[in-house]
Amino acid sequence: MYHKLTQEDLDALRQILPKDRVLTGDEILSDYYHDELSGTEAEPEVLVFVLSTEETSAVMRYAYEHDIPVTTRGAGTGLVGAAVAVHGGILLCTSKMNHILELDEDNLTVTVEPGVLLMELAAYTEEHGYLYPPDPGEKTATIGGNISTNAGGMRAVRYGVTRDYVRALTVVLADGEVVQLGGKVVKNSSGYSLLNLMIGSEGTLGIITQATLKLLPLPKKSISLLIPFPSMDEALDTVPFLVRSGTNPTAIEYMSQDVILYAQDYLSKKFPDTAHEAYLLLTYDGQTPEEVEHNYSEACKLVIEHGAIDAYFVDTDERKKPVWSARGAFLEAIKSSTDEMDECDVVVPRKRIADFIKFTHQLAKEQNIRIPSFGHAGDGNLHVYICRDGLPEETWKEKLAICFKKMYALAGEYGGQVSGEHGIGYAKRPYLAELLGERPIRLMAGIKDAFDPKHLLNPDKIFKLKE
Amino acid sequence: MYHKLTQEDLDALRQILPKDRVLTGDEILSDYYHDELSGTEAEPEVLVFVLSTEETSAVMRYAYEHDIPVTTRGAGTGLVGAAVAVHGGILLCTSKMNHILELDEDNLTVTVEPGVLLMELAAYTEEHGYLYPPDPGEKTATIGGNISTNAGGMRAVRYGVTRDYVRALTVVLADGEVVQLGGKVVKNSSGYSLLNLMIGSEGTLGIITQATLKLLPLPKKSISLLIPFPSMDEALDTVPFLVRSGTNPTAIEYMSQDVILYAQDYLSKKFPDTAHEAYLLLTYDGQTPEEVEHNYSEACKLVIEHGAIDAYFVDTDERKKPVWSARGAFLEAIKSSTDEMDECDVVVPRKRIADFIKFTHQLAKEQNIRIPSFGHAGDGNLHVYICRDGLPEETWKEKLAICFKKMYALAGEYGGQVSGEHGIGYAKRPYLAELLGERPIRLMAGIKDAFDPKHLLNPDKIFKLKE
Repeated sequence: MYHKLTQEDLDALRQILPKDRVLTGDEILSDYYHDELSGTEAEPEVLVFVLSTEETSAVMRYAYEHDIPVTTRGAGTGLVGAAVAVHGGILLCTSKMNHILELDEDNLTVTVEPGVLLMELAAYTEEHGYLYPPDPGEKTATIGGNISTNAGGMRAVRYGVTRDYVRALTVVLADGEVVQLGGKVVKNSSGYSLLNLMIGSEGTLGIITQATLKLLPLPKKSISLLIPFPSMDEALDTVPFLVRSGTNPTAIEYMSQDVILYAQDYLSKKFPDTAHEAYLLLTYDGQTPEEVEHNYSEACKLVIEHGAIDAYFVDTDERKKPVWSARGAFLEAIKSSTDEMDECDVVVPRKRIADFIKFTHQLAKEQNIRIPSFGHAGDGNLHVYICRDGLPEETWKEKLAICFKKMYALAGEYGGQVSGEHGIGYAKRPYLAELLGERPIRLMAGIKDAFDPKHLLNPDKIFKLKE
Repeated sequence: MYHKLTQEDLDALRQILPKDRVLTGDEILSDYYHDELSGTEAEPEVLVFVLSTEETSAVMRYAYEHDIPVTTRGAGTGLVGAAVAVHGGILLCTSKMNHILELDEDNLTVTVEPGVLLMELAAYTEEHGYLYPPDPGEKTATIGGNISTNAGGMRAVRYGVTRDYVRALTVVLADGEVVQLGGKVVKNSSGYSLLNLMIGSEGTLGIITQATLKLLPLPKKSISLLIPFPSMDEALDTVPFLVRSGTNPTAIEYMSQDVILYAQDYLSKKFPDTAHEAYLLLTYDGQTPEEVEHNYSEACKLVIEHGAIDAYFVDTDERKKPVWSARGAFLEAIKSSTDEMDECDVVVPRKRIADFIKFTHQLAKEQNIRIPSFGHAGDGNLHVYICRDGLPEETWKEKLAICFKKMYALAGEYGGQVSGEHGIGYAKRPYLAELLGERPIRLMAGIKDAFDPKHLLNPDKIFKLKE
């Protein structure tokens, strides 16, 4: 169905882009065959680096005329294979489009190219006294990737997710035409929200080449609280009370003892307290010390009432570092504790998290496999890891399939969704199809057809295209 | 193209619904021919009242089989003709589906039928200690209509718009199939956001029969400030400073002297101060008096630094009433000041509001026509009214067309959009087409085809369908 690239095509691409940004064969590092986790692997026929909307448009015009599939890639930090060129063709990398273009203080927006890293954006905005609230754990992800997966992160309890901060996008469509979606406007009721459709579409509807993001004034004060509980139940049962308390927490993270110990080992850094089964890590921020103090004092009272053993302030740098660096290292720590693993990024109603984690414990016993987890308890978004621990290939695949099937089925029963923030990509397609059912997938396929009738943009991601 | 209803069809509908909920001819009050403003008028062939998702689905199945267009209507408070059955067929009214179904305090959501009025929802949630933040001026609108237009309102500066509070929808599709979009989940990266596509789609993609909405803890303290300025420029130039001040205002409304005087006349109630050319009305709310006090004190300092004449506290009931009832009556007051009017609900980058209003003043002079306006200054969302004031039909239509054309062109130049919160419906289609350009409209038409290939759901709204 797709055209395989010939020397003529490569020559043509080298007319559009300088030779050093059109790589083939051994010039392509094997890093570009995969992402960070999913096990999806494929070699692109050509890897190109674009520097502008115009270049991206020119590449797409050529690809459209010649039926060449195009997979867009940022930093390659994804976990579900979304940025892997499973049909070969062109792997189009936006990582060199990494300029911050404008800070508009009157409209409180920042305009960036898609290859800007989350950590670069955070540093820039903070330096200017502003906050870009979305705060996924992976700080070396690009903002283009964050928008394409509607990334969430730690601060979603108070501030929401990436979707809530995208005001405008410049998008190159499948045939190379460039459209502007949204604008520097706060309200918008002007037809179907193509902007919101593009957010989270994982490179299947268009290529994002510029983004205008909403900022907030930087909170002047921020404090974290580490709260040990005697058991998971008590920790997680406290969460709904915190959310409706009016104390307005920024983050409510759940950590279990086993995962903290993995991180402690991995980082060779002592965690302040590892004596208890379960912990909540809260953050409060605000514009005045009084406001923050009032909120965390109320929160302390509330957690003690609900069975917490203590509440440690994590306010000095010496305390902040071990706690937040441990939290930031959970994924890597679990990864390094085993030879291979896969992830379930499920999201369920907040109230159901404890039940869901208990189910994974039961499943671990039943399948005789290790399933550590941690999560954004305030959002009902869990990261559950199934660890291979040296199992033979066949048994591993078998157990993995059983675990995923059962976990996503339970998520569905609870009114949850397959992915809270990491997306569907290539790896999670069967589970999305199963959980959503036939009609919603058919509607998505219809939208895909309207945007990309030749199915050139990141084909077979999110759902399997009809032949 | 569409099938005209016969006696057989009416009999069939009376098999699906009880006779007293299937009205024809003189049984249909002329109120159902139009909405509140747009001048769009059409008689439905039949008016039906549904009470459930199942009934709605049964009606749609019949309509789909027989090629009958279906226009959904809530309270009929729209301003752009979206709920007018311009192709005849079935006018399907959800106003009797008006039950609040569930308050889920663990997940902080409320689940409602679409016919619940905004004022009913506000009263219910407040009574239970929660806030549903979207706060459009029209409190007798249904929540279904609010979702269908992505309604905004006064509190958007701090809390955002309707889109930000819709967690899940039950939707009846064109062929009668029922789908669930979203869920009681806070994060979601599970395929294209059909939920966000449905929000703001004005009844053209499906019929909303149930909605789960996000709530917040009710602020314990709220105060407003009425701030007179010597001129519009000084008032509006202050707005960006307020937004980035860190004082976190809930509402920033702009009012000019002339519009306040209309409202004073209309309500026969004295407004506390009418001596100045321009006013900002601010609201601050929060969980503690200290937090609110700190914020409004900072705001007072800031507005005085930027040229405000004074800052009146609007905190007691005696003060709140005249100010907010005037603000709430602006539309009606302007309406009653003329024989006919039409509205431009434009949204521009916040920084451009003053320039936009100046342009309308210039246009009023140039066209010798009255163009009063007021607006959500914090959101860049203006409501501009062109008043007929007894002009003969032809001159009126001519001047109206010129004014709209020029205003929307300027909005486009400024990077704005046709509608901030009232939608496109039937009346604003040409301006949307002009401002967005051909491709985005073609993408929307493609989405429409994927959802509603027979073009039965509210046809020819938002954009004109191809024959």
